Amino acid sequence: MHSRTVFFVSDGTGITAETFGNAILAQFEMKPRHVRLPFIDTVDKAHQAVRQINHTGEVEGKKPIVFTTLVNMEVLKVIQDGCKGMLLDMFGTFVHPLEQELGIKSHHRVGRFSDVSRSKEYTDRIEAINFSLAHDDGQSNRDLAGADVILVGVSRSGKTPTSLYLAMQCGLKAANYPLIPEDFERRQLPPALVPFRSKIFGLTISPDRLAEIRAERRPNSRYASLENCRMEVSEAEAMMRRAGIRWLSTTTKSIEEIATTILQEIRPERLVY
Amino acid sequence: MHSRTVFFVSDGTGITAETFGNAILAQFEMKPRHVRLPFIDTVDKAHQAVRQINHTGEVEGKKPIVFTTLVNMEVLKVIQDGCKGMLLDMFGTFVHPLEQELGIKSHHRVGRFSDVSRSKEYTDRIEAINFSLAHDDGQSNRDLAGADVILVGVSRSGKTPTSLYLAMQCGLKAANYPLIPEDFERRQLPPALVPFRSKIFGLTISPDRLAEIRAERRPNSRYASLENCRMEVSEAEAMMRRAGIRWLSTTTKSIEEIATTILQEIRPERLVY
Repeated sequence: MHSRTVFFVSDGTGITAETFGNAILAQFEMKPRHVRLPFIDTVDKAHQAVRQINHTGEVEGKKPIVFTTLVNMEVLKVIQDGCKGMLLDMFGTFVHPLEQELGIKSHHRVGRFSDVSRSKEYTDRIEAINFSLAHDDGQSNRDLAGADVILVGVSRSGKTPTSLYLAMQCGLKAANYPLIPEDFERRQLPPALVPFRSKIFGLTISPDRLAEIRAERRPNSRYASLENCRMEVSEAEAMMRRAGIRWLSTTTKSIEEIATTILQEIRPERLVY
Repeated sequence: MHSRTVFFVSDGTGITAETFGNAILAQFEMKPRHVRLPFIDTVDKAHQAVRQINHTGEVEGKKPIVFTTLVNMEVLKVIQDGCKGMLLDMFGTFVHPLEQELGIKSHHRVGRFSDVSRSKEYTDRIEAINFSLAHDDGQSNRDLAGADVILVGVSRSGKTPTSLYLAMQCGLKAANYPLIPEDFERRQLPPALVPFRSKIFGLTISPDRLAEIRAERRPNSRYASLENCRMEVSEAEAMMRRAGIRWLSTTTKSIEEIATTILQEIRPERLVY
């Protein structure tokens, strides 16, 4: 049962407010209820939000926590004046000191995602998603020269979610390629990858965890057996070591941590801006 | 040419710092250089970061802007004491007032992604990504009952990136299904979808923009011709109207805005927490 509600109020999607608010709240041992109020871009909607926040506070008998990233000053003023929650104005707090330091005024434009849909950066990102989908699980060898990174690893080591994350959040063309028993017998990387060794990055995983993950999909199979997982992981690691490929273990890492580590290692040139 | 550098310093991935910092910086007409310094989790690494920041400031002749989400107080102190940039301490600024309001101390645990990889929420998210991939572009009718949302629309209306975003960022099992000429002739939704009408959400797009997008993939094709795009969009919209399906136009919207709108509309129950 939650004991308090946290609101994320934004004139845009509210994603920034919620991402940041969650990171702050993760510093506390509590399980508040989350309510995102996106697209609060008129004074009317602001009054509605105030009513909802104050009503919640009355029902719960506790001040709601209200994170806002409101940019429109008129809308923000309605919340500031009427809201009986604890208001944490994430933009105002930092924008004013920055205006001083930079010597320029902020333009109070709403939403970092508005008008992006026709920008070069945005279309590149969509293209990266399409590329990563087309090159998931070694589906295609075509245009691997166009990849920013090629992930390799045994089945279920985390290649697919990581590739899609790199494409969606970083605009990286991320292919991924499974390492399979045939490769181990040949004791060589899949031939299609050899020309691109410098952009290969390996993922490995502990055999125990791998067996657990595989068992969810194919219980009691040879594929999921601990013995087979041990063999595959050990062969894959030996192959990556021989080939001089950088790799990391995904066992206790989230997609975000894996992706950040890969970015640090490969430092794709076109992302230095 | 950039005129100033912005650093994002974190003991975790730095994703929170960069997401939030970018949203703040979008309020200013400037193109700073971005440098993310993730995993700054020891005093030694903090000293290194200070050297890098101060060196950059000397070379550029301008104070670097430094967003931090450092949780480790020892590490933060090194930055506070040594860094000659403009320090914006995103956590400290909000954590202290929150401690007051909540009446509990924050635990200074590093990184919102740490130790998540075995949590239920995280494995659900990975499962959602796998589901969305398996149900991309109408590939499978199996287990559509398990979907949280089924996106429909003509080819290239934005279904695939939106489905993957909903899965990756919101843990939603998002299937997507194309509306094709056969459906228009039959004047009915694809039969496999009929039992699940309440969780269908439509995406549409302006015929001009659709023709542009399709022409990038198949220039001079009938598929990409404005005439054909007009016909498909008009048929798809008529079908969605007849079937009473909620829909939105993706023409000028980003994936984030589309996903947020869909979440507001369908309000999946299992996400109310």
